[in-house]
Amino acid sequence: MKLPEGIVIKEVGPRDGLQNEPELIGTQDKIEWINHLSSTGLSYIEITSFVHPKWIPQLADALEVAKGIHRNKDITYAALVPNQKGLERALSANIDEVSVFMSASETHNQKNINKSIKETYPVIEEVIKNAKRHHKSVRGYLSTVFGCPYEGKVSVKDVITISKTLFDMGIDELSIGDTIGVANPRQVERVLIEIREHFQQNHIALHFHDTRGTALANCLTAMQLGFDTFDSSLGGLGGCPYARGASGNLATDDLIYMLHGMGISTGVDEARLKEAAIYIQQKLQKSLSSHQMEIMNQGRGVG
Amino acid sequence: MKLPEGIVIKEVGPRDGLQNEPELIGTQDKIEWINHLSSTGLSYIEITSFVHPKWIPQLADALEVAKGIHRNKDITYAALVPNQKGLERALSANIDEVSVFMSASETHNQKNINKSIKETYPVIEEVIKNAKRHHKSVRGYLSTVFGCPYEGKVSVKDVITISKTLFDMGIDELSIGDTIGVANPRQVERVLIEIREHFQQNHIALHFHDTRGTALANCLTAMQLGFDTFDSSLGGLGGCPYARGASGNLATDDLIYMLHGMGISTGVDEARLKEAAIYIQQKLQKSLSSHQMEIMNQGRGVG
Repeated sequence: MKLPEGIVIKEVGPRDGLQNEPELIGTQDKIEWINHLSSTGLSYIEITSFVHPKWIPQLADALEVAKGIHRNKDITYAALVPNQKGLERALSANIDEVSVFMSASETHNQKNINKSIKETYPVIEEVIKNAKRHHKSVRGYLSTVFGCPYEGKVSVKDVITISKTLFDMGIDELSIGDTIGVANPRQVERVLIEIREHFQQNHIALHFHDTRGTALANCLTAMQLGFDTFDSSLGGLGGCPYARGASGNLATDDLIYMLHGMGISTGVDEARLKEAAIYIQQKLQKSLSSHQMEIMNQGRGVG
Repeated sequence: MKLPEGIVIKEVGPRDGLQNEPELIGTQDKIEWINHLSSTGLSYIEITSFVHPKWIPQLADALEVAKGIHRNKDITYAALVPNQKGLERALSANIDEVSVFMSASETHNQKNINKSIKETYPVIEEVIKNAKRHHKSVRGYLSTVFGCPYEGKVSVKDVITISKTLFDMGIDELSIGDTIGVANPRQVERVLIEIREHFQQNHIALHFHDTRGTALANCLTAMQLGFDTFDSSLGGLGGCPYARGASGNLATDDLIYMLHGMGISTGVDEARLKEAAIYIQQKLQKSLSSHQMEIMNQGRGVG
């Protein structure tokens, strides 16, 4: 099978992973964990979210974390930004890239960010415009592309329309999300062929969840179509706290196991990645759910 | 993508699943569970194993189970048989198909059945010959095809040689096993292209484990090559008790979720399958590990 020779992995554990953890992790522990991740060979780490602390108490220390970490110049450090206020905090920490986000389905967008899709556009547009003024790259997240927990099926036409709007506003990359982990390979193929027709393929990332066990099959399908950028979360940490039945970010370590086994390079050192997983597992005092960590945990007690 | 329109699922939960469960399940409960499975639309159920009870106490009631179940004439009821003695017990229960088994790697074969590969052949040959004399079909299981817990890599040449020996002895179907769940799609492609060159494709089944999360990606690859028969275990029950780190049979319910989502028929009714999974979960008094059952269990307490 013809597949990309190398894959770019965008680690979202410190943001998308931790935001779903009820147990608060200390700021210094987060900083040390991100420093661990910076030593693994990853080229991209989404480190926190500048949403209002009342929405995600776990990430209330976004500024301290962003300022506290050791910055490796070969790594892009990104953060989620919901609006102009969040952007200002992100800029004050001199974050490399900011991520804006919205959903492909009206109801999920409303429940997740308390605005209609139409109301969301100007907020995002302002962030993009001002981020660009500060020479920051911008990533867009589009959620519920493969299914919505409230509406069910999501129209590919709507996905294309929203994606086009976001690219027209100036995003540099779009991350296509299977927020509730319902996608199957045939659906992925159908959606991505449409996406590929409308946008530059190397500006698209895939964000799969393994909620139903299909994430790696979906990655395989995307790779067969030539897509080469995937979001994942070390140890399978996290999910979306606002979507019913949403859990199970694709685990970075599981993805890398498959890719390296297939001779596809990621630049990531598996031994160091495992150390980083063990570190955060100890801090969380709970077993991480990736297959790789499950296998390791069976061999010895957690922590 | 070009995929088979329909897939045959061979349910191995009552044998491969239960044999790995330490908690003994009552004979009548097993019978009722298999009767449940018989009502789901499955066309093949491996119901038990006629190995010596001292090896697998859980399946010591093989004869009672085989004689006690309601036999649906549209379903093939199969059982594992290690030798002539086991075959005689299986025949006395008038089982439809018997399964013989061995490993592709010498060390795993030795540890699993206490014989070298060479010593195993005549034992299996006798079973096949006598099963055929009673007009029974015979399935062969070949374990550790994609990796051995003791030897690591397994040579495809050895796999072909052993498979050829088994087909020459008269097996009707060969189930190719990823016993410890290490396979990746590229490896599956490489091995199956070899297999396809040497044997009739419709006499080959795949038996993947999801230990490292790759099972559905491996199924997808096999389907893209035209293979259409998969072994799986409802709820992800079981694994191989003799292989270190071996767990995680591919779950029938997870496989069916993906297949039906892709418009591929299996003949199985998902609602009835779920009832059968809930039944055995209650009897085992533990949560089943399939993604489908995890999602369901999050919604309500087990049992």
